[in-house]
Amino acid sequence: MNQIAVFSGSAHPELASEICADLGVPLQPTQVKRFSNDCIEVQLQANCREQDVFLVQTLSAPVQEHLMELLLMLDAARGASSARITAVIPHYSYARSDKKDAPRISIGGRLVADLLKTAGADRVLTMTLHSPQVHGFFSVPVDHLHALHELAAHFRRFDLSNAVVVSPDLGNAKTAAAFARSLGTPVAAGAKERITDTEVRISAIIGEVRGKDVIILDDEIASGGSILELLKHLRANGARSARVACTHGIFGGGAVARLAAEPDVTEIVCTNTLPNALRQPHPKLTVLSVAPALAEAMRRINNGDSVSALFESDKQPERVAAE
Amino acid sequence: MNQIAVFSGSAHPELASEICADLGVPLQPTQVKRFSNDCIEVQLQANCREQDVFLVQTLSAPVQEHLMELLLMLDAARGASSARITAVIPHYSYARSDKKDAPRISIGGRLVADLLKTAGADRVLTMTLHSPQVHGFFSVPVDHLHALHELAAHFRRFDLSNAVVVSPDLGNAKTAAAFARSLGTPVAAGAKERITDTEVRISAIIGEVRGKDVIILDDEIASGGSILELLKHLRANGARSARVACTHGIFGGGAVARLAAEPDVTEIVCTNTLPNALRQPHPKLTVLSVAPALAEAMRRINNGDSVSALFESDKQPERVAAE
Amino acid sequence: MNQIAVFSGSAHPELASEICADLGVPLQPTQVKRFSNDCIEVQLQANCREQDVFLVQTLSAPVQEHLMELLLMLDAARGASSARITAVIPHYSYARSDKKDAPRISIGGRLVADLLKTAGADRVLTMTLHSPQVHGFFSVPVDHLHALHELAAHFRRFDLSNAVVVSPDLGNAKTAAAFARSLGTPVAAGAKERITDTEVRISAIIGEVRGKDVIILDDEIASGGSILELLKHLRANGARSARVACTHGIFGGGAVARLAAEPDVTEIVCTNTLPNALRQPHPKLTVLSVAPALAEAMRRINNGDSVSALFESDKQPERVAAE
Amino acid sequence: MNQIAVFSGSAHPELASEICADLGVPLQPTQVKRFSNDCIEVQLQANCREQDVFLVQTLSAPVQEHLMELLLMLDAARGASSARITAVIPHYSYARSDKKDAPRISIGGRLVADLLKTAGADRVLTMTLHSPQVHGFFSVPVDHLHALHELAAHFRRFDLSNAVVVSPDLGNAKTAAAFARSLGTPVAAGAKERITDTEVRISAIIGEVRGKDVIILDDEIASGGSILELLKHLRANGARSARVACTHGIFGGGAVARLAAEPDVTEIVCTNTLPNALRQPHPKLTVLSVAPALAEAMRRINNGDSVSALFESDKQPERVAAE
Amino acid sequence: MNQIAVFSGSAHPELASEICADLGVPLQPTQVKRFSNDCIEVQLQANCREQDVFLVQTLSAPVQEHLMELLLMLDAARGASSARITAVIPHYSYARSDKKDAPRISIGGRLVADLLKTAGADRVLTMTLHSPQVHGFFSVPVDHLHALHELAAHFRRFDLSNAVVVSPDLGNAKTAAAFARSLGTPVAAGAKERITDTEVRISAIIGEVRGKDVIILDDEIASGGSILELLKHLRANGARSARVACTHGIFGGGAVARLAAEPDVTEIVCTNTLPNALRQPHPKLTVLSVAPALAEAMRRINNGDSVSALFESDKQPERVAAE
Amino acid sequence: MNQIAVFSGSAHPELASEICADLGVPLQPTQVKRFSNDCIEVQLQANCREQDVFLVQTLSAPVQEHLMELLLMLDAARGASSARITAVIPHYSYARSDKKDAPRISIGGRLVADLLKTAGADRVLTMTLHSPQVHGFFSVPVDHLHALHELAAHFRRFDLSNAVVVSPDLGNAKTAAAFARSLGTPVAAGAKERITDTEVRISAIIGEVRGKDVIILDDEIASGGSILELLKHLRANGARSARVACTHGIFGGGAVARLAAEPDVTEIVCTNTLPNALRQPHPKLTVLSVAPALAEAMRRINNGDSVSALFESDKQPERVAAE
Repeated sequence: MNQIAVFSGSAHPELASEICADLGVPLQPTQVKRFSNDCIEVQLQANCREQDVFLVQTLSAPVQEHLMELLLMLDAARGASSARITAVIPHYSYARSDKKDAPRISIGGRLVADLLKTAGADRVLTMTLHSPQVHGFFSVPVDHLHALHELAAHFRRFDLSNAVVVSPDLGNAKTAAAFARSLGTPVAAGAKERITDTEVRISAIIGEVRGKDVIILDDEIASGGSILELLKHLRANGARSARVACTHGIFGGGAVARLAAEPDVTEIVCTNTLPNALRQPHPKLTVLSVAPALAEAMRRINNGDSVSALFESDKQPERVAAE
Repeated sequence: MNQIAVFSGSAHPELASEICADLGVPLQPTQVKRFSNDCIEVQLQANCREQDVFLVQTLSAPVQEHLMELLLMLDAARGASSARITAVIPHYSYARSDKKDAPRISIGGRLVADLLKTAGADRVLTMTLHSPQVHGFFSVPVDHLHALHELAAHFRRFDLSNAVVVSPDLGNAKTAAAFARSLGTPVAAGAKERITDTEVRISAIIGEVRGKDVIILDDEIASGGSILELLKHLRANGARSARVACTHGIFGGGAVARLAAEPDVTEIVCTNTLPNALRQPHPKLTVLSVAPALAEAMRRINNGDSVSALFESDKQPERVAAE
Repeated sequence: MNQIAVFSGSAHPELASEICADLGVPLQPTQVKRFSNDCIEVQLQANCREQDVFLVQTLSAPVQEHLMELLLMLDAARGASSARITAVIPHYSYARSDKKDAPRISIGGRLVADLLKTAGADRVLTMTLHSPQVHGFFSVPVDHLHALHELAAHFRRFDLSNAVVVSPDLGNAKTAAAFARSLGTPVAAGAKERITDTEVRISAIIGEVRGKDVIILDDEIASGGSILELLKHLRANGARSARVACTHGIFGGGAVARLAAEPDVTEIVCTNTLPNALRQPHPKLTVLSVAPALAEAMRRINNGDSVSALFESDKQPERVAAE
Repeated sequence: MNQIAVFSGSAHPELASEICADLGVPLQPTQVKRFSNDCIEVQLQANCREQDVFLVQTLSAPVQEHLMELLLMLDAARGASSARITAVIPHYSYARSDKKDAPRISIGGRLVADLLKTAGADRVLTMTLHSPQVHGFFSVPVDHLHALHELAAHFRRFDLSNAVVVSPDLGNAKTAAAFARSLGTPVAAGAKERITDTEVRISAIIGEVRGKDVIILDDEIASGGSILELLKHLRANGARSARVACTHGIFGGGAVARLAAEPDVTEIVCTNTLPNALRQPHPKLTVLSVAPALAEAMRRINNGDSVSALFESDKQPERVAAE
Repeated sequence: MNQIAVFSGSAHPELASEICADLGVPLQPTQVKRFSNDCIEVQLQANCREQDVFLVQTLSAPVQEHLMELLLMLDAARGASSARITAVIPHYSYARSDKKDAPRISIGGRLVADLLKTAGADRVLTMTLHSPQVHGFFSVPVDHLHALHELAAHFRRFDLSNAVVVSPDLGNAKTAAAFARSLGTPVAAGAKERITDTEVRISAIIGEVRGKDVIILDDEIASGGSILELLKHLRANGARSARVACTHGIFGGGAVARLAAEPDVTEIVCTNTLPNALRQPHPKLTVLSVAPALAEAMRRINNGDSVSALFESDKQPERVAAE
Repeated sequence: MNQIAVFSGSAHPELASEICADLGVPLQPTQVKRFSNDCIEVQLQANCREQDVFLVQTLSAPVQEHLMELLLMLDAARGASSARITAVIPHYSYARSDKKDAPRISIGGRLVADLLKTAGADRVLTMTLHSPQVHGFFSVPVDHLHALHELAAHFRRFDLSNAVVVSPDLGNAKTAAAFARSLGTPVAAGAKERITDTEVRISAIIGEVRGKDVIILDDEIASGGSILELLKHLRANGARSARVACTHGIFGGGAVARLAAEPDVTEIVCTNTLPNALRQPHPKLTVLSVAPALAEAMRRINNGDSVSALFESDKQPERVAAE
């Protein structure tokens, strides 16, 4: 297959550098120029012709700036006769806008998927989409990784004999179960759903947590509000301590400090799909790198090897007939 | 706006007739011819030119036959210079294929959405999609109705003072809560999720059902297996009786009989988004018509009135900031 | 070029197996799952990434099932990052719907060509299209084979000194002439066309058949009715015996038996573009394999060799200036 | 519906004027400018905004000039915010390139259909396509007229008691039969097909022509060679006299004179789908106008009335099950 | 035509309000929500169904935020079944990126045109594009206004007997000449072009400015640097005073103050295609409103009247044959 | 990369032959057939399958014929399974139609770019586009060469100590400056712009030409009128002699003779982007070959090497922040 050329937008160049180090290729320079009228122009500063081009840009805040930068990079790469262009978007934040739950609202998750294609993306590599249906929003092939290996490797270093994995809600329980299995622990889940349209929400803990050291697993944590609420219920059910883990650590508005202030929270773990600069550092915060996983996927994409094979050991439960 | 012309495929002509009766327009004839090589050819047998054409075809079994018929009808309508073509698909059964939960599988929900557009659909009118994200699979405008009005009108005829609405799983709980509110009853939910990858599934009942007359509400019931399992839990929690309600009553393989055989099941209610011929008749089975709702939506589509306004009285809970 | 990966739908796996045996590659497994609501889901069970993927599916009855299966296979192959996807459709049965000879009818031959592209086909390999214009319905490249080599090889084993090739109608006469030339026989043709709009049809035999052993050559035989009518005219013109040959042997509704019951019909020959299970076996029926021809075309497609060169020896008459 | 605005390219402004006179609307001016580098620029010189725009341009020689002019007119009309744009192409001459009968040749009939859409055509109005399959080459709606009414009206003025309609080949026989029926005459056909690849062609006359006054009907006549050959066979079969009729009278290279020189040819009739300037005038040549038919179709397109209803009285024979 | 519905993004709601006041229609509310992960969601809060929807959003700083807002509004309007959607973009700032003057750079002017179409724009209304070729970047119809009427009306209030219009460079001279003609003044131009690749630029004043009151006319002024340079040359050539006029007054980084600080600059005039909040107010600064011009264009678009007729009185010089 | 296959249309086969000689590959034969109805059919007469196909066709007069030929060649190459198709268009003459400077006119530069893509072009190789914005009209990658190397090499053979490069207008001055720098001469420019809408045009010479031997550099020369006018001004400013140079030498209507008749014109130089047959030979006329430049670009495109690197030594001036 063609030679790899990796470029990074300005959202998260550290991650791109790590990926390139792992791949053993240079990170090619990108020049982003801002005109006095605030418009952006991008120049990819290395030959793209007939290369297997990867453009690394996570959709972190300021999201619109980073998205437009990525779209311009795609345009430049296409005009420069790339053999194939893969948008590497570790955190596809627009996945949260995945349904039309009110009249006349935008479905950003689908729109951005279409914009990426219009700008020239031949394929997308991303991680832990908010809902699995978002995959179907793309009309180009998508490789969809998860970070369970990285998180499991981290937790295996501790004594897990008294641990239980807890999913904050039942929608995420399947992933939590797979994670628990790879750690050899039981699993539990919060039953988090509002049941009238005003205030009350069902909030039971399903499964045994009494006296346990809990590992809370979520896909992403933004303000941390629902985790704080879950912690109250865990305490009420007699949990002994808690570690909080997620793939996408947004942690806006002092969320890390707020979570860390809870005395029974002993650790907060996320990955570097988003840049460290967005998060306040804290002794209780651990950030794991997904660069090796992304690099391995890019290597396989370039070689034409199976990416799904990467995840074989923790494969999903047998799918059964519908209903 | 242009004049309405309604045609029906062979999947569910009774529903199309009812819709036309409600609209006060004739159901125009469609001729479906099968060649000796099993290929289908469709002729719409009334003028479509500059008409506001509605093609009614639910995706009931045999699904592939009905889908191909619809695609050919769309092709014929487009070639016949229709002003606008709306595919009216009361049950979009391919919505179940909405994610890529294994490598190299098809995402039928997205594919069929694309095929409909290729064949000429300008818009789609459908009912109670299996997951709300499926809306985003379509690149043409979609009007997405629900049948809660029809179901509520039915149940309001009974004494509901001891009733509780139960959602079989928490994913559906938001809809169940809106339904309960319109009936003036409390709500409960089954916590149905597998938590390891082999057998066990969390199955608690969240909310009080002891001594209650339960109304189970689901979007669709196919084999009925999960409802039977829920009934066991309801009994174990002391429920007094149960009525089973859903929008899409597939009820394959004797499901009606199996559910009706449960002595505490007093009634099974579904709508006619699928033809009666697919279901064995049974004294406990009640089928409500969605024809008036579909006709009203078509009238509003033709007039350019708001369709979402149809659902104002049972509008969704205020959406709050994400997380 | 990239490595070949061949998958088969459920229409005609025997043919796919034969092709793979000829190519010396394994037939990769495809899993087709049917949900209780009759929808289909397809999983290609071998790595497609950067492979030169061939999906073999003839459009035999039940046509709509097989077509939808093929569309889902294409969707799965595209999502799985295939380098190139070729739909191998030995019998493209929708080619019969190639014109709009009545108002507001579908043109299935064009529609299905568009659906194949929408689902992800990069190219199509097919055999003996009903009319050559159908080629123009596709917006992706088409390799269009014929089976004259196979049929000629079969007939050359007989004494052809008294033989004449007869085309059932003049539309097919050019092909029949090429075939006759490769057999070293003269050619004749039925003049089959209706000339008023009710009943009568011109039916003369043009060319000499008296005392001859006739080889009737057609592209496809469905119910066999027009062949039976031709036989009457051949007898009336003094033909001695008849062999019937075609590429696509649909032979619906007992057609083989009906043709074989004619005492002067000594043999019926078709190819295996359609599965044997569709045809009643009969001592007079011979089925030739097109697997070697399809395999050779696939090999050339993969290598980038000329496919048209395959047919050089029986090349078409010099095209002359129009009119 | 919106107001009609008709513009003409330079191919056949007389026809456009006649159409406009019939419609009672002005023919709007078009300015075609040729730069010194031979490129063309078109300006439509009347408001198109929200108009129902018709661009009249037949594809007569010089075909490439006229085609490019039409494409530029479409581009201008689209940029000028037309409500709808119909390309009126009385003679779609590229229909002759409808198949791939040699490797690596262009299929112009399909390509030009795609170019028209790219340039902005929303629909096409044309007349007597060379083969009916060409209809399927277009992805926009096509209204496909014929000129049988006009031709029949002309011939009904003569004594037809001894007349027979003759189709030069069997491919055109269905149309000839419909024409004969509307004239109340019998029908016959030439069996014109080459049967080896060098020289010989089957050429029988099927049906009775002895002592008859023949009306030869073809779709288009270019050099007239095949008509001259047919005349030889008609004479050999005892025909008394011949009139020659076609829709598209190309008559290149002195064809009118050559046909008229045959003493038994009493009249040559064509329509004005192509401009008179292309044909040498001759006392035996009659040109009928299709302007009223095109105008009526445009009126119906604008009103949203059925165009196929125009042809009801001479409708096609019942289509029967395939084969 | 359908009813008008006007919505505004957050870039310049004052302009949208003015337009609506002129049109006599309400400005419909738009809700823009920002998630904690910085993604945006838009809800149009009035019925769009079958409306002639206009979305007003100028591309002012922060440009990427405003662009993404507009794209989401387009998506929402399309999903809400608008009859037609016009993006009203008074200042299309990405027009500056109109060529590929270095390898591997983005052409933002074309990319954004494509993104607008992908998101659902049916047409665009804009003002004074930086270069006229940008019009050709759009594949949807564009109405391209200018502000010369507004600027001329302003200047006509002064004594212009000693005035001369000066274009800062020759590229803009044609527009300046039309403007001068409508004011009844002579015209001059700066010859501003660099001629080596380092520093020097030709800078002559062509035309007579000695003792004159100069009106400098440009399309947009960003930092004001080139105007300051022009002023030096005008002084050197003996100009008496200067007024500075442009359509798009970006005036970044204190540009108004810097220009106003020049003692011979008596007035700076721009229009409100960009919001006032971006510019420091200054006694010498006059801002004219283009709302009436935009409203009139929207009225004509809705009515199907000619928009180019708006500009008849100052129509362009006769175009002559090329070269 | 795949093997190169080069075909030429009939516009300029000499150039294609030269390119092939330089590349060391055969020029493959193309058969262009014209039907009696003036339609064209193209057959590429060598295998294209999986080849890197280059179709050489300059858009010289008759432009529409050559354009349609190219479109048909693209169609044939696409249908013949080319791996990649590059349209090599040395002179893209439709670039002159690059803006909408009057209502309802065509923008041919954009339309033809879209037609090329529709017909199957994957990329375009061209030379010296009339305005750089035309690059943005293409949605496929474009390699845009210039001929400054060739022209500079020619002039370096002369004594340039007294020479000055003159651009006929300021729009072209940047290119002229780069050219002057590579020759080591100063630069000047004509200030050619009309300033009212009737007659007068600013026509100063900016820069020193007195006593100089002038080299006039333009992109293309059609009728030569503006060069003749420039010569008058040069003489008035004291220039001693003039050489005229351009890339695209159209020289219509005796332009070479008219220019050569000026006694102070010592030489006229152009390149062979257009065929010699279009120009009258003249002792003062020198034609340089761009075949080596085009061949080198094709070699690099095929190899995946940077094409922009070709022009490194005369790279553009540093682009500075806008305005």
